[in-house]
Amino acid sequence: MTVDEELEAARAALVMINPAPYNAEAPPAALAGETTPTELHYVRSNFAVPEHDGILEIGGAVGTRITLTVDDLRAMPAHDHTVTLECAGNGRLEMRPLPTGEPWGDFAVSTATWRGALLHEVLAKVEPAAEGVEVLAVGADHGPYHLQAILPETDQDNLTFTRSLPIAQATDPSAGILIAYEMNGQPLGRDHGAPFRLVVPHWYAVASVKWLKRIDVLVEPYSGEFQTGHYMYQWPDRPHEPVSLMRVRSRITDPTPGSTIDVGTCTVRGKAWSGAGPIARVEVSLTGEGDWHPAELEPARSDYQWQDWTFTWESINIGRHTLRARATDAAGNVQPDVPPWNRLGYGNNAIEVIYVDRV
Amino acid sequence: MTVDEELEAARAALVMINPAPYNAEAPPAALAGETTPTELHYVRSNFAVPEHDGILEIGGAVGTRITLTVDDLRAMPAHDHTVTLECAGNGRLEMRPLPTGEPWGDFAVSTATWRGALLHEVLAKVEPAAEGVEVLAVGADHGPYHLQAILPETDQDNLTFTRSLPIAQATDPSAGILIAYEMNGQPLGRDHGAPFRLVVPHWYAVASVKWLKRIDVLVEPYSGEFQTGHYMYQWPDRPHEPVSLMRVRSRITDPTPGSTIDVGTCTVRGKAWSGAGPIARVEVSLTGEGDWHPAELEPARSDYQWQDWTFTWESINIGRHTLRARATDAAGNVQPDVPPWNRLGYGNNAIEVIYVDRV
Repeated sequence: MTVDEELEAARAALVMINPAPYNAEAPPAALAGETTPTELHYVRSNFAVPEHDGILEIGGAVGTRITLTVDDLRAMPAHDHTVTLECAGNGRLEMRPLPTGEPWGDFAVSTATWRGALLHEVLAKVEPAAEGVEVLAVGADHGPYHLQAILPETDQDNLTFTRSLPIAQATDPSAGILIAYEMNGQPLGRDHGAPFRLVVPHWYAVASVKWLKRIDVLVEPYSGEFQTGHYMYQWPDRPHEPVSLMRVRSRITDPTPGSTIDVGTCTVRGKAWSGAGPIARVEVSLTGEGDWHPAELEPARSDYQWQDWTFTWESINIGRHTLRARATDAAGNVQPDVPPWNRLGYGNNAIEVIYVDRV
Repeated sequence: MTVDEELEAARAALVMINPAPYNAEAPPAALAGETTPTELHYVRSNFAVPEHDGILEIGGAVGTRITLTVDDLRAMPAHDHTVTLECAGNGRLEMRPLPTGEPWGDFAVSTATWRGALLHEVLAKVEPAAEGVEVLAVGADHGPYHLQAILPETDQDNLTFTRSLPIAQATDPSAGILIAYEMNGQPLGRDHGAPFRLVVPHWYAVASVKWLKRIDVLVEPYSGEFQTGHYMYQWPDRPHEPVSLMRVRSRITDPTPGSTIDVGTCTVRGKAWSGAGPIARVEVSLTGEGDWHPAELEPARSDYQWQDWTFTWESINIGRHTLRARATDAAGNVQPDVPPWNRLGYGNNAIEVIYVDRV
């Protein structure tokens, strides 16, 4: 296969939102498994798939500048982390008023097993300066950004994807951040950031910079387009805030919306996740208003991935029924009824409502 | 066919919400036409289809009490009115938090041509008392209403469907209110109120009492379950209000949500209606935020029915696109972005958002 044919094959099973830059949701069935097969994992890109020379440069305010290849990364201790990644714009289509931006439904979320070197171990090699405050990740992806830039100083003719993390987080051994070079046991595909990318557990996936080209230790907070322009919650009634941890959310994966199921016993299944900690409980509602029943919650398989839940639903009544699922995380965050509206449409974690027909 | 087989056949093409009492939406394609074929017209019932002895009693505070049969009504001047009827609960599924009540999607709206006698001409026969304030319509339908009643004084063991109109409206020759005995050229079917029913243009269809059994002129405002308990807007932040005129609304009938259409020229089609007057304009948005373009609005075919609109949409971009339609009526009412939430879930006229895939 040519490179283009390979890319096309890798994309065949996804639900395409935008061909250029390529953005695609997982098909709904992909969310049912413990992890998401690579060919069903959603793809979010801000620019076209770039060329990458295979070299990662690490510099900025450091004692020693270094470059690393994928072989150098593989020579370091390898860690496998199974991580739920969700696009900050996931669920944008459900927000009212409808924001601009990629019209994501609810399937820009997936879970893969990533293998890589730990970011904090890589950073230890370069001796970050004591005055370092952030770690900037620079992707190889770039391109024109006309009509989209929010910040006036943004280079709209040739913008590069760049995003920083607080240095305390980047150097925290417990954060689990990878420079990943494998996804589900295979080298990264081109849509997923080949040859290597960041994978930042718990954070909306904007932090998991693909096609990683440079890492720079910064002594001033970064203020680029994707840091303080886009990926900011522009609240209507309070100060703007950067997108950060994934908000607590649950999804009903079975039955599927609009499906027809026999009366009697139905096992409702779903997923729940939060960037702020493990899920404490999931509840299911069978009518409107405040009718909530506890679901059975599976323990977390790891610190970074969605949890399964089930609910046994008995009904002898034929006709249309509504189902809702609501998750609460260990930090006490609960899903809201109404999406938390913000102008760019990030962080929709509202309670999902589906209906099914009992026959 | 037996009576039961007839009923089953009449229901075959509808989207059933509840078998008992029978409630069913129109299939989406039914909204495309100028009028809705009877077998595709939505059905809303509060109780099971009742027996009816064919006699309509008219009394209360009147000079002369009378009874009428369908033959008596047919002996009066016949009027054909094409009327858009919408259930006040239409769109309840889209409200957040989800209210209780029948889980209507967006297809509890239809348009039929009804033939009947004018209510004001019937009332003229009985000489309403000068102190009359309302006209109460009593259906033949009744039954248990346990767990549903809102008013403490409601007879939950055997409640009858009753609903009143202001006498000024009931006696207004321009209101166009019918005691209808034909629907689309045929005697009323059992689900649609046989042998006769009210058809009250411009009002949510709760006013169009089916299986009409009695009409009483009242000298005090009526306060029954379906007048001041149900069919009330229970606003969270202002006084409760009765459901009355249909709120201004538009629907996109073509393309259908989630459909795939070729790039190039696409004619977007839809309907718009309001109880407060004809539609003044419909606008279409192709992205989020405040991007609105005027649609071509067809003039109203009559005072009581939805209006057609079209919009020519050119796009060479493949991928997912959003479409929104927003109507404004002659009284200046505009569809809101967010459904006007009320506890029982009435009057959702929020702007519809659909997405389609261009290929």
